[in-house]
Amino acid sequence: MHKIDINCDMGESYGQFQVGNDDILFPYISSSNIACGYHGGDPLFIENTIKKALNLNLNIGAHPSYPDLAGFGRRKMEMSFDELRTIIKYQVSAVKGICESLGGKLSHVKPHGALYNTAANDEKVSLAIVSAIREIDSSLILLGKSSSQMEKVAKEKKVRFASEAFIDRRYDKSGNLVHRSIAEAVISDPDIAITQALDIILKKKVLTIDNEYINIECDSLCIHGDNPIAGKILEKLKDSFEQNNIEISPLLNVES
Amino acid sequence: MHKIDINCDMGESYGQFQVGNDDILFPYISSSNIACGYHGGDPLFIENTIKKALNLNLNIGAHPSYPDLAGFGRRKMEMSFDELRTIIKYQVSAVKGICESLGGKLSHVKPHGALYNTAANDEKVSLAIVSAIREIDSSLILLGKSSSQMEKVAKEKKVRFASEAFIDRRYDKSGNLVHRSIAEAVISDPDIAITQALDIILKKKVLTIDNEYINIECDSLCIHGDNPIAGKILEKLKDSFEQNNIEISPLLNVES
Amino acid sequence: MHKIDINCDMGESYGQFQVGNDDILFPYISSSNIACGYHGGDPLFIENTIKKALNLNLNIGAHPSYPDLAGFGRRKMEMSFDELRTIIKYQVSAVKGICESLGGKLSHVKPHGALYNTAANDEKVSLAIVSAIREIDSSLILLGKSSSQMEKVAKEKKVRFASEAFIDRRYDKSGNLVHRSIAEAVISDPDIAITQALDIILKKKVLTIDNEYINIECDSLCIHGDNPIAGKILEKLKDSFEQNNIEISPLLNVES
Amino acid sequence: MHKIDINCDMGESYGQFQVGNDDILFPYISSSNIACGYHGGDPLFIENTIKKALNLNLNIGAHPSYPDLAGFGRRKMEMSFDELRTIIKYQVSAVKGICESLGGKLSHVKPHGALYNTAANDEKVSLAIVSAIREIDSSLILLGKSSSQMEKVAKEKKVRFASEAFIDRRYDKSGNLVHRSIAEAVISDPDIAITQALDIILKKKVLTIDNEYINIECDSLCIHGDNPIAGKILEKLKDSFEQNNIEISPLLNVES
Repeated sequence: MHKIDINCDMGESYGQFQVGNDDILFPYISSSNIACGYHGGDPLFIENTIKKALNLNLNIGAHPSYPDLAGFGRRKMEMSFDELRTIIKYQVSAVKGICESLGGKLSHVKPHGALYNTAANDEKVSLAIVSAIREIDSSLILLGKSSSQMEKVAKEKKVRFASEAFIDRRYDKSGNLVHRSIAEAVISDPDIAITQALDIILKKKVLTIDNEYINIECDSLCIHGDNPIAGKILEKLKDSFEQNNIEISPLLNVES
Repeated sequence: MHKIDINCDMGESYGQFQVGNDDILFPYISSSNIACGYHGGDPLFIENTIKKALNLNLNIGAHPSYPDLAGFGRRKMEMSFDELRTIIKYQVSAVKGICESLGGKLSHVKPHGALYNTAANDEKVSLAIVSAIREIDSSLILLGKSSSQMEKVAKEKKVRFASEAFIDRRYDKSGNLVHRSIAEAVISDPDIAITQALDIILKKKVLTIDNEYINIECDSLCIHGDNPIAGKILEKLKDSFEQNNIEISPLLNVES
Repeated sequence: MHKIDINCDMGESYGQFQVGNDDILFPYISSSNIACGYHGGDPLFIENTIKKALNLNLNIGAHPSYPDLAGFGRRKMEMSFDELRTIIKYQVSAVKGICESLGGKLSHVKPHGALYNTAANDEKVSLAIVSAIREIDSSLILLGKSSSQMEKVAKEKKVRFASEAFIDRRYDKSGNLVHRSIAEAVISDPDIAITQALDIILKKKVLTIDNEYINIECDSLCIHGDNPIAGKILEKLKDSFEQNNIEISPLLNVES
Repeated sequence: MHKIDINCDMGESYGQFQVGNDDILFPYISSSNIACGYHGGDPLFIENTIKKALNLNLNIGAHPSYPDLAGFGRRKMEMSFDELRTIIKYQVSAVKGICESLGGKLSHVKPHGALYNTAANDEKVSLAIVSAIREIDSSLILLGKSSSQMEKVAKEKKVRFASEAFIDRRYDKSGNLVHRSIAEAVISDPDIAITQALDIILKKKVLTIDNEYINIECDSLCIHGDNPIAGKILEKLKDSFEQNNIEISPLLNVES
C-alpha cells in the first residue's frame, strides 16, 4: 500500500475576481494551500475556502506571496531579508488565525509563484521563509521543491520539510521544470499526467522531455488548479490510484 | 490609590511613510494599539513596534481598520457584515500571530478611525467586530467608546469591554466628542488636558465645551499620537499622576 | 430609421484575474466604457482593450470608480469633494492618455458601480464628477442614469449628458432598477430583454416588474458584460434591430 | 553667464502619510518631478503639488515608479516589457492630464527609485521607458543618469534626453554614486555640497570619494527632498550661484 498527498493552491479569488476551480478539485485532494491576500485571496474568500477544506478533512496550509496582486505574485521582487521574513509572518498568521477560528489547525506553508521559484535557488530567501515559519510555529511543515535551497535550509534549521513533484508539468533531465514558455511544459493529456504520477509514486522515476528517466522522490504531488484539465486528471487519477493500491493521504501522515 | 490605563495608537507608519511619535510616547503609556496593515503598518514596522511594546511590558492590542490606506482608514466604507467580520479577523490574526511569535499575548482589539466611529452608532457594524473577536479569541477585550453600540453589543455577546475617554479632545454636553472641524475640538494646552484627565479619573466628570460638567466613566484614557503636544501632555501627566496617587496600569488589570 | 448606442463596461480584468466576456461582446456594441485601474483594469489590459475597441471603431469612454479593488468598486465610500474630484481626474486622465497614444479620442465618462449609484441621488457627488470632467476636457460626454442628479448637475454646468437605459435589468414603476437582491432583477430570458430594448427605442416605454408601462427615454442602451447571456442577447438583438430598421450608432452621433 | 536646472522629486506624500519638504524647497528649484501614485502621491496631493509648481513657473515632470507603495518604489521588480511600458504610460498620462487641467504642460519624465537604477544599466528597461514616452508625447524629455542605458536608448530612439548630476551624493571614480550603505554616501555638510555643485557647473568636474577629480556633464542638478539639510543647501546655493553668475533655469531652456 502506497500513500501520497495531493496538494493544490486554493482560495486565490479576490472579491469579484474569480480564479481557479476550487469546488471541482476539492474532492480529489488531501492538502489545500490557501492564498493569504498578497497575490489573491480576500478575507471572506479565505474563510469560505478554509471552511470547505475543513469539511473535507483536508490539510490546510498557508500560501504566502510577494505583495503583488496585479502580477498574481509571479513577478520577482527585491526585498530585504527582514521585509521578506515579516511579510511571510504576517500572511501565515492571518491564515493561521482564520483557520484556528474555524476549529482547524494549520499544517504547512508553501511559498507561492515567484517567491517559490526564487527560494528554490536562493539560500537567503529560503532562510527568510524558514525563519518566518520557526518564529510563528516550529511544527509547521515547509512544502517545497525537492533538492532545493528551501529543503537544504529547512533541514539545517530543523524545520520539517516535505517535497513535492508535479503531475501536470514536464521535467528536463536536470530535474527542473520545463519553462512555461516551451510548448510542452504543461501536460495537456490526462493519460500522460497519470502515467507521470504513477511513475513518480511507484518507480520513483519520471520520464523527462528528453525521453530519459530520472530519479525523483516526493511527499506530495501538486496539481495546478488553473490547468483546464485539472479536474479530468484528478478524476482519472482516483480510479488509477485505486487499481494500483495507492491511498491519497494528507501530508501530516507522511513520514518525515 | 487610583489605577488607569493609558492607550495610544502605534505602528501606523508604512514603509518610508513615517507617522506618529511612537518612540517619544512609548514610555508614558500602558497599552499600545497596533496598526494591522489596512490603514497603516507594514509587517516589518508592526513587528518592530510590538518588540518595543513588549520590552516595556505594555499591553498589545490590534487596531483594525477599513481597507483604505490612501484615506488612513478615516473614510467610511459600506461593507457587508461578512466582509467586515472577516477583514477584522484577518487583521487581528496577523497582528496576534506576530505578537505571539515574539513571546507576547494579544490583550485587546480597538477599531480604528471610521470603523470606530461607525461602530459607535451602528449595531450591525458593532456585531461584526464583536463576532470577529469571539471567533478569534473570546478572551480578547474590545476597547471602545463608552455607552456606545460597541459596548452594548459586546455585553450582549459576553465579550469583555473596556471603555475609553479622551485626554486631548473636548466633549459636548451629550457626551460626544466635538467634531474636528470645530476649532477647539483638539486640546492644545497641556494644562487643560491634564485637568480633564484628573477630572475623569478622580471625579468621574468632564467639563464640556458648553462649560458644564457631565458624568463620564472609563477604563482607559486615550491620547492621540498625532497630536503635536502629546509628548508634552504625557510628560506633565506623569508628574500630576504621582502627586495624585494615580497609577498607570495596563487594561488587563482593570476590573471588568 | 432609429439610431441607438449600445454601451458595455470593458477592460475590467486585472492581471491574472479575468472577468467579463469582452471578446464575445465587442462585435455587438458601439461604445465601450474602459475600467481605469481602481476597481479593475491593469494598464496592459487597458491598453489591449482600447486597441480592440479602436479597431472596431467603437466609442471609448473612461469608467472611473471608488478606489476599491477588493470590492470591485461596488462598496460606497465616504470621500471629500476634492478627493472624489481628483481620483476621477486621475483615472480619466490615465485612460485618456493611453487612448490618445493609440490614435484614439476619449468620448465619454461613465462612473462605475457604487460611484454611479451614489451620484444618481447625490448632487454633491455628481458635482465632483461633473467638475472633474470639465477640468479634464469639457467636450467629454457624461453617460449616466436619466432623470438623475448626474443629469441635473451636468446640464447646470453645461457638460454634455447622455442617458442610458438597461436591456437586461427590470425597472419598477418609479423608474428605478429593481435591486439585485430581488430574484427577477436581472433578465435571464433573451426574448424579454429584446422586447424591453425594442419598447424603449420604438415606444419610449418599458414594462415594469409591476406589469405597467412607464415612459423612458435614453441615448444609449447598457448591457452588463457579466450577465452570462449577454452574448446571446446581443446576437438576437442584432437581428431584431435589422428587422426593425434600428441602427446601432456610437454616442457621439446621438444628438444632444 | 551659466544656466542650470535644479530638479527635485515632489508630491510623494500619500493621504495622511506626509514625506518630503516640498514647501521649503519649492522656491529654490526650477523643475519638479511629480509622484504618480505608484510609490507615493495620491490624486489630491498630486493636484495640489502641480498647482504650487505652476504658480512658481516650474517645469513639471512625471516621476513614475514600480507599483510598490510599501517599498516606496525602491525595490526592483521583474516585469515584462509590456507591463513596464504600460504602467509608465498609465502614470505619465495621469499626471499629464492633471497638469493640463490646471493649464500647465508636462515637460519631462524622470523614473523613480529602483526603476531609475535598473534602467541605468538595463537596455530593455530603458527601452520600455523610452517607448512609453514616445507613445504618450514624443516631445517629452527623459531626465536620467548621464552615460547610462537610458541616455543611449533615448538617443537611438530620438527622444530628448537631459542628464542630471547630484548635489548631495558622493561619486566614486567610475562616476557611479556611492551606495547609501556607505557612511559618506550622502553629503551632510552644505559647504561640500555647494563646492560640488559649483565644480560640476563651472569646471565640469566632480571630486570623488577617492579624492580624484573626474569629468562630469549634466543639464540638471538633482537634490533629494528627503535630505534633512536640503533646504539649507539650496538656500546657500542661491547666494553662491548669484556670486558666480549662475542662473537657475528650467530644463526646457537647456540646449539639447
